[in-house]
This record gives sequence, structure tokens and C-alpha cells, in this order.
Amino acid sequence: MAVAFAQRMELIKASEIREILKITQRPEVISFAGGLPAPELFPVEEMKHVAVTVLEESGHQALQYSTTEGYEPLRQQIAVRMNKFKINVNPADILITSGSQQALDFSGKLFINSGDVILCESPTYLAAISAFRAYRPNFVEVPTDDNGMIIEQLEKIIQATPKVKLIYVIPDFQNPTGRTWSLERRQQFIEVINKYEIPVIEDNPYGELRFEGEIFPAIKSFDQKGLVVFVSTFSKTFCPGLRIGWMAASSSFIEKYVLIKQGADLHTSSISQREISRYIDLYDFEAHIEKIIAVYRGRRDAVIQAMEQYFTKDVKFTYPNGGLFTWVEMSNGIKAGELLTQCLKEDVAFVPGDSFYPVERVENTFRLNFSNMPEQRIYEGIKRIASVMNSLVP
Amino acid sequence: MAVAFAQRMELIKASEIREILKITQRPEVISFAGGLPAPELFPVEEMKHVAVTVLEESGHQALQYSTTEGYEPLRQQIAVRMNKFKINVNPADILITSGSQQALDFSGKLFINSGDVILCESPTYLAAISAFRAYRPNFVEVPTDDNGMIIEQLEKIIQATPKVKLIYVIPDFQNPTGRTWSLERRQQFIEVINKYEIPVIEDNPYGELRFEGEIFPAIKSFDQKGLVVFVSTFSKTFCPGLRIGWMAASSSFIEKYVLIKQGADLHTSSISQREISRYIDLYDFEAHIEKIIAVYRGRRDAVIQAMEQYFTKDVKFTYPNGGLFTWVEMSNGIKAGELLTQCLKEDVAFVPGDSFYPVERVENTFRLNFSNMPEQRIYEGIKRIASVMNSLVP
Repeated sequence: MAVAFAQRMELIKASEIREILKITQRPEVISFAGGLPAPELFPVEEMKHVAVTVLEESGHQALQYSTTEGYEPLRQQIAVRMNKFKINVNPADILITSGSQQALDFSGKLFINSGDVILCESPTYLAAISAFRAYRPNFVEVPTDDNGMIIEQLEKIIQATPKVKLIYVIPDFQNPTGRTWSLERRQQFIEVINKYEIPVIEDNPYGELRFEGEIFPAIKSFDQKGLVVFVSTFSKTFCPGLRIGWMAASSSFIEKYVLIKQGADLHTSSISQREISRYIDLYDFEAHIEKIIAVYRGRRDAVIQAMEQYFTKDVKFTYPNGGLFTWVEMSNGIKAGELLTQCLKEDVAFVPGDSFYPVERVENTFRLNFSNMPEQRIYEGIKRIASVMNSLVP
Repeated sequence: MAVAFAQRMELIKASEIREILKITQRPEVISFAGGLPAPELFPVEEMKHVAVTVLEESGHQALQYSTTEGYEPLRQQIAVRMNKFKINVNPADILITSGSQQALDFSGKLFINSGDVILCESPTYLAAISAFRAYRPNFVEVPTDDNGMIIEQLEKIIQATPKVKLIYVIPDFQNPTGRTWSLERRQQFIEVINKYEIPVIEDNPYGELRFEGEIFPAIKSFDQKGLVVFVSTFSKTFCPGLRIGWMAASSSFIEKYVLIKQGADLHTSSISQREISRYIDLYDFEAHIEKIIAVYRGRRDAVIQAMEQYFTKDVKFTYPNGGLFTWVEMSNGIKAGELLTQCLKEDVAFVPGDSFYPVERVENTFRLNFSNMPEQRIYEGIKRIASVMNSLVP
């Protein structure tokens, strides 16, 4: 057949991680690979009550078409909740999206012409790379350390690079590294942004899941020029199956995003939006988040303790203060892809780091997810990885 | 602020219909403007039972991330249901989408480079025009009559036009005209498609809502070369608030669509997919559709009778055998935009036809929706439109 696809399809490829995730569905596999929240913490009983309540109170509206912008009471509740991050936003400047992934896709659509440059952390979230690739950008990776993007490097890159159209960052418990930007870096970052007037996507799906210390103000909270688009989701604090995320941005951006949303899928599920909104009305959402934090903190402790116990000194890892991930760097000469191949034979899985670098393939890193497994299995899994590592050391 | 949006945004504009729809939310307005299904027919009580059942049976999976392709049992149920249209498809070749609107957006993404040509019926569905515009195509309108696209014209246009990449059609109870393609046209159409090997989007949201006669085989049912993408939705036969649609296509297309979906929003709501699937298991979906048909048939009869009674001979309209719309053409010198302005003063609304022509603005047509109002109000509304028309005749 002679059908030709659009040029952008050359860049849209099956992700390697998907293939790994298929293997890890076998129950005997100890998987650090996905990014799944712990399903045993989903509020199933409460959702039963909420679903019936919404249908009784407003069944006809909940099942009908609704506005592209989203359900007004939910947008108000989100605006209030974002005060956690010191963000002060008008509900009118919030757009409900079908998961935060959709906000990433829309951001590519809004800002990126073929050949435009997106700056991102090195490494960065692989599904953001996939979403943006549909708009044929060039990526430039900005070096990062334990405190976030290195701002001197960022400014040098901006000065040396034509057509920088967008900067994509995940300042809180980053995917994949688990790192959090320091307050100082956030402030330095916004100064650079203001100077060059470049739009920023601040992706923050994990920020509310902080295990210790205070939540830092979001970069968006320092945004005076309306350059920062704050993106978040209920997927990690509530449940991902409903596909409810949101973005908060200046009205000149939001009105464009609304037009994009209208063409893309009209609006997000009316009933799911109402269900989350009624849940927030009827239950103690903060207490629910505290429950998630307590469990994930224990799992973070387990993975860190296990790595300290079993990994050798030439294997370094991050210490995340929240979120779902830790990041491992090996200086023992082992490639993560090889390590995975051998680990799968031992029924243990993770994601090799190279998928998280849009430009350079770095082969000595990997990502570990710790949110989706009891502590016992975490210990056992790390022990197996360590044992495979030892067998592979050149 | 110096921020530049992507070039595609020049074409993505607020639709005029949206502004009309805002006005029509006042309860005193008799609105023929929207395309809303009748909410009093939504199965609210059944949905309460289904929502609780799904959460009891599989709450953890229903609230978790799920596969991009969609919930397997639902894809099987859809495959069976498509036999109505004589379509024989493997569940593996069905992708669940967030409403059928998303399938249109993805089709632009899959096939269209800037400057490629999309052929469509004249007139055609305005939200499809919006979805495709994001990929910067040129539209060419193919003349239609009461039997569908005029195939001789289609072939001439294909021969005379470089870069025809996609053909978009709505053969059953078309939006906006309510017309249905004859069996003969469907067969002639597929011959032309096979000859030139051009992908086709067959959009069929209304086909199951047939008021009289037999359902015609879909164009997809004649597709031997895997060129036709069949798109449909539960929005009109069940309810739109859940945002569940689907597409059925050859596996070489579906595998690309799945990659697009993964980047765009990961997957469609896990719980909503399971709810529709359990509804189909537990209730008589065909009986539910029969109930909708009976009500809409009465409303179709009302709008036709009222137009026959009140409109003058120089106002023609289509007689739809199903669906939600009828289409009016005036040869009395009145422009539909002017007519609307005056009608709104009398609290009655419709959509002027020009938004449904991507290339030429035709000013003497308008669309009437009849699914969302009791018959009494339909009579009263048509009477008011006729009275305004009489006052405007030059």
C-alpha cells in the first residue's frame, strides 16, 4: 500500500519502556520499572459513595457534554490546593486536562514549530520527550546536579542556541532522578527566564508527596511575567484511572490551550471531574495524601537501605525526599541495558537510563520505582540486582 | 511579552458556534443550535449500579493506569457491535479514544503535513475542520447531493489536485445535513479509493440511531485494502460525559495511532471503559437504543411537520432518516447570520451554515438540531424562525 504518513511519524516510535513493562506484568517479577502508584491506597469505598452521590445529585449533567475549560467547582478547589506551592491563581486560568500527559502534548502543539529548540533537564521524563517529539523539536539537554538545573549552563546554552522556544522542567522529586531543585536555583532560574522571556513548562505530578521537610514554592509562584505553565495531576495523589490533570497559566496562554483542547477531545470526562470534586468536598483529602506519604516513605527507606547494604561503592544513587523514584549511576563499567537483560532472567526489572536522555545516550544509569511494592520485595529485588551486578563486573 | 506561538495557532480560532452556544444556555431560549443528546434518556439509575459493580469487582484495576489500546473486553464488545454495519474487525484493531473527536485529531497527526490536502463533503462537520486545522492542511470540498458525495466530482478533484492525503466523510445522517449516502455511492466511492489508495476517515457517530429502514453497510465493510478508518462513539447511543469513542482500522494504521495516543494522553479512563463494558453485559443496550430512536423519531417528525407548515416554498430542508440534524437552504435572499441575529431577539437559536464549509462561505444555509427538545418547543421554535424570516424577506 502506498499510503504515506506525516513526517512527524518518523520520530514517534514505540518506547522501549513499554516492552519492559509487558514483561513485568508476570506476577513473579519484582518490578522497579513502572511508575505506578500503590493501588491498595486507592479510595475504592469512598469512590463508590462519590459515584452514586454525583449521579443522584446531577446525573443528567454528569453524563452530558460539558465545557472545554472544565468543571467550575473543581477548578476552584484546584486553585485553593495550589496554595501549597505558594501559587496564587484565578480558577479561570486553570484548564482541566485528560491527565497531565495531555498538558505536555498541548504545550508542544502551542509553542513548537519544526526545528524549534526545547531545553530540558539532563536526564528528563521520557513520556514528555515522546509528547514533544510529535512537533519535531530539537532538544538540548541542560546539565543538572543535586540542586537542579545548573543555571550558568542554562544561560550559556540560551545565549548560544537559536530558536529556544520552551523550557521543560520537573523541579520536585524529578522523574527519573528523584531530585528536587533548591530554593536558590528556582529563584535564579526565574531571573533567567524573565530576562530571555522563554515559556516554561513546570511539571509537578509528585510535589505533594513530600516525605520530610517543607514543600518549596513552585517556580510558578515567582512568575511575574506569565511565562510559566504549571502542570499537575490527581494521578499520584488520588488515582490515575480517572485521567484528571490540569494546567495553570496566564490567561493569554490558557485561552489558546482551551482552543487546542476543544479540537483535541472537546473536554475531559464530566462525571470524573465531578467525582473528584465531590470527593474533596466529602472527605479529608489531606489525610489521604498523608497515608500515601507514610507508605511511600517506608518504601523509599527500604530501597535506600537495601542499596546501601547490597550495592558496592562504585554504584551511586539519589536520596529522594518525596515522589516515586530513585536514580542509580554505575561507575563499575556495566551498561544498564546488559544489566537489565540479565536481571530479567532473575525476575527483577527496572528502566535503563538511556531513554531519559533525548540527545545523548548515557548507558551507566537506571531508574528505580519504589511506590508499587511492599518493603520485603524491595529488599529482595535490590539484592538480586546487586548479585547480577557482581557477576557482570568486568 | 515576546512569546511566539507555533504557526499552526494562526489557524486555531474560537469557533463561532461556541459563542452561540453560550447564549443558548439561558433556559428561555429554544435552541436548535447544539448537538446534544437528550439527557432525560441517559441511564442514570443503571450507571449507579454499574459504577458500584465495577468498583466492587475490580476497584484497584479500574482506578489504576491501564493499556493505551483500551480495555480488552470493551474492544471485543465493540467488535461484535460493529457487525451492525457489516464491519468485520479484530478487537486488536480497535483503539479506544477519548471521544471520537480525539480520533479526528489523531488522524490529522498521523497523515497530514503542512500543505497536504484533505477532501471532505461540502458541507462537513465543523469540529472535524477544527481538529484537522492544527496540522495545517488545505481543504478541498467535494460537491454532495441527497445521495452523498458525487463520485464523478470526487474523481475529477483527485486527478486535478496534488497531495491529496486524506478523505473525510460522514456517510450516515451526516452532520450538518442529516443526509445518508446511498449503497451505490458507497460502492462507487470505495472503487475510487482503491484506485488512488487514499486513506479515508469514515466518521459514524449517529449510524445506530436509524428511525426507519435498514442500516446500510459502512464504507469500511467494503474496504479490502485497509484504507478506511472507521470512527465512532458512545456519546450519542449512551452518553457523552464519559468521553468514550473508538476507531477501527488496519493494524498498520492502528499501531501508529496507539503510539500517538500514548504521547497524547497515555490511555482513556480505565473506569469509564469498564463501566460501559459492564453496562453492555448487564443491560439490554439494543433496547436502550430503541428508546432513544423512538424519542428522536418523534422530534424529527415534529421539526419536519413544523417546517412544512410554517416555512414558505423557497425554504428547502432535508428529511433525515436518523441522527440529530436537519439542514435548511433558503432561496429567499436571507442570510443565515442575519436571520440568527434577529432570531436570538426572539429567544430561538440555530447554527448558520457557513461554519460547515472550510473553503467557501455559503450564507443561505443553517443547521437545526432536534434531539434535545420536546416536540412542543420544536413547533414553537420553528414558528418563531418562520415569523422572523417573513419579516426579513427582501
